[in-house]
Amino acid sequence: MKTNDIIRPTLVLDKEICLHNIEWMAEKAKKHNMRFRPHFKTHQSAEIGDWFRLFGVEAITVSSVRMAEYFITNGWKDVTIAISLNIHEIDVINRLTQSAKINVLIENKETATALAKKAKGRLGVYFKIDTGYHRTGIPSSRTGTIDNILNIIKTNKKLTFKGFLTHTGHTYTARSTNEIFSRHFDALLKLKSLKNQYKKAYPNVEISMGDTPSASICGNFDSVDEIRPGNFVFYDLMQHSLGVCSLSDIAVKMQCPVVAKHVSRNEIVIYGGAIHFSKDTILNTDGKLLYGRIAIKIDGEKVLLDNNNYLSKLSQEHGIIKLTPANFKLINVGDVIEIIPVHSCLTANLMGHYITTEGETIRMIPRY
Amino acid sequence: MKTNDIIRPTLVLDKEICLHNIEWMAEKAKKHNMRFRPHFKTHQSAEIGDWFRLFGVEAITVSSVRMAEYFITNGWKDVTIAISLNIHEIDVINRLTQSAKINVLIENKETATALAKKAKGRLGVYFKIDTGYHRTGIPSSRTGTIDNILNIIKTNKKLTFKGFLTHTGHTYTARSTNEIFSRHFDALLKLKSLKNQYKKAYPNVEISMGDTPSASICGNFDSVDEIRPGNFVFYDLMQHSLGVCSLSDIAVKMQCPVVAKHVSRNEIVIYGGAIHFSKDTILNTDGKLLYGRIAIKIDGEKVLLDNNNYLSKLSQEHGIIKLTPANFKLINVGDVIEIIPVHSCLTANLMGHYITTEGETIRMIPRY
Repeated sequence: MKTNDIIRPTLVLDKEICLHNIEWMAEKAKKHNMRFRPHFKTHQSAEIGDWFRLFGVEAITVSSVRMAEYFITNGWKDVTIAISLNIHEIDVINRLTQSAKINVLIENKETATALAKKAKGRLGVYFKIDTGYHRTGIPSSRTGTIDNILNIIKTNKKLTFKGFLTHTGHTYTARSTNEIFSRHFDALLKLKSLKNQYKKAYPNVEISMGDTPSASICGNFDSVDEIRPGNFVFYDLMQHSLGVCSLSDIAVKMQCPVVAKHVSRNEIVIYGGAIHFSKDTILNTDGKLLYGRIAIKIDGEKVLLDNNNYLSKLSQEHGIIKLTPANFKLINVGDVIEIIPVHSCLTANLMGHYITTEGETIRMIPRY
Repeated sequence: MKTNDIIRPTLVLDKEICLHNIEWMAEKAKKHNMRFRPHFKTHQSAEIGDWFRLFGVEAITVSSVRMAEYFITNGWKDVTIAISLNIHEIDVINRLTQSAKINVLIENKETATALAKKAKGRLGVYFKIDTGYHRTGIPSSRTGTIDNILNIIKTNKKLTFKGFLTHTGHTYTARSTNEIFSRHFDALLKLKSLKNQYKKAYPNVEISMGDTPSASICGNFDSVDEIRPGNFVFYDLMQHSLGVCSLSDIAVKMQCPVVAKHVSRNEIVIYGGAIHFSKDTILNTDGKLLYGRIAIKIDGEKVLLDNNNYLSKLSQEHGIIKLTPANFKLINVGDVIEIIPVHSCLTANLMGHYITTEGETIRMIPRY
């Protein structure tokens, strides 16, 4: 796509990189005999969802009931709503069960009781298990709690216990790839132990794991029945900084016009701010917070600049890019700069649509 | 509005508080003989924009060309696009000049040259002046640069030099109200000096200032022709923490369902995350980052909980609220909690619409 077509902050998607990421992860899941149930919260797009079908994907994960409704409306028939069930939305969920197989997550008696009372359509039920992230879920050792909830679930024949699901979110704060391995393995052991305890009473009990860092770099998925990574479809600087992907795996980049230069600070101002990128940062090698990495055209070639050049501040609609003096000279007011985002899920959510490198517009779920 | 109607994260707007905030600021501008040109980037809503008309507002500020187009389509006839001009959007701007008086901002020769060449409709031109925030703008001492740009502007009869505009953004990082006063006053002195230098050649030269902290608490606007605050329409915790408003001035609150409780951590999990609130934080009194303050119903009355109770972590769709043990006991799975947001501009931008306390839906500019 020609950058002289760009007049505003634009989220550009490289479909080829994206398809490669999907294919790679689909192959990996297959190799490990796991169901590939990718999380669609990163791209939130029916069209991009359809690209997954090319690689045999039939089951998906979403992070809200309205996201489930959007994808079910677009033909998906097997959906896990991977957030602790919000019983206020049971009416919508009941309606959706007429169009698709839906799994919900529970972690407490109150919600299980309300669900047993109000579920009218067939639903699969997974237990959300805390395997070390300590945000949500039942600690894996609490089989007493699990048994109590199972007894409640049994009272409604529409509900089927499916297994145990975890999100190893603490891989995102790992300080080394070793830590990703150990957090994943530790979580896996806990789920495996649960599976073994419940296998006799429930021969089809499953364990489901799902985070991009471990799905990308780990090799041990012994006994894991499905994986649910989402971010890998695009990757981003956060994943790169964890050692989980290379920069060339990142499928989405922002393109932003330069509106000003400030030579005394070696800074340029772009049109592109918090409402485009989000306020997520990673720590740069200089100890400062970084909102994006920079690529510019030098003699017609796209060149990624090193970490001394980065998006350093964001206001609502503007950004400030710090540059080395040499690179500062190379950029002119009116140029369009490429910026690799820190957190592609949040950037995509803000931008609301993509333009592919071929110039096609790809839509997403509406904002509300 | 009845909270049992709420099933999802909802941004609730108290119209009475909002109208009061608008009226108060309009009165203040009038008292100081300043044009009130409020920034509409905080609410981004044609309907809320119309509330400003009740208080005599006829001129507005926006932060993008598409925002200008949205409000002009909804009847506004005097619009300042208060970001350094993005020359790529000149065609749209030219078209809009047929429907409204538009002012643009410049700060460098390149953009001024391009503007002089491409402007087809009548435009007002303000210089963006850096008065201490050091993000954008020409330092106020650089009259040589200003003169050069003025000479370029003169070459196109459609362009009219209007004056000097600043955004005292460094009031947002003030560590005391004293610092807000001094930063404002320092900026005012710089602009006043410029006004005096250019008054002879340009008798109608104006100075325009615009940030909510100083507009709210300062009293010295000597020689200031207009103010452009935006956030005051709603206020938020960021403004409250600066000492600029009281909590009861905050016109927007999130309402979020509780999906889980974790007694070992005195934490509750809500449906409501980064894609609802944004990732902006303030520093809490315990030294931790805070994403929101909490209000719950106790015996039918809404009670604001103290700072030991706060929204402490956000994932894409969930939030974790830390509570004191006593308050933890008072909340049940299924309850709907009220959360005061840190940065109302970003939360509103993410949510995309409001529900008033009377249950009315208020729409905003589309996402793209």
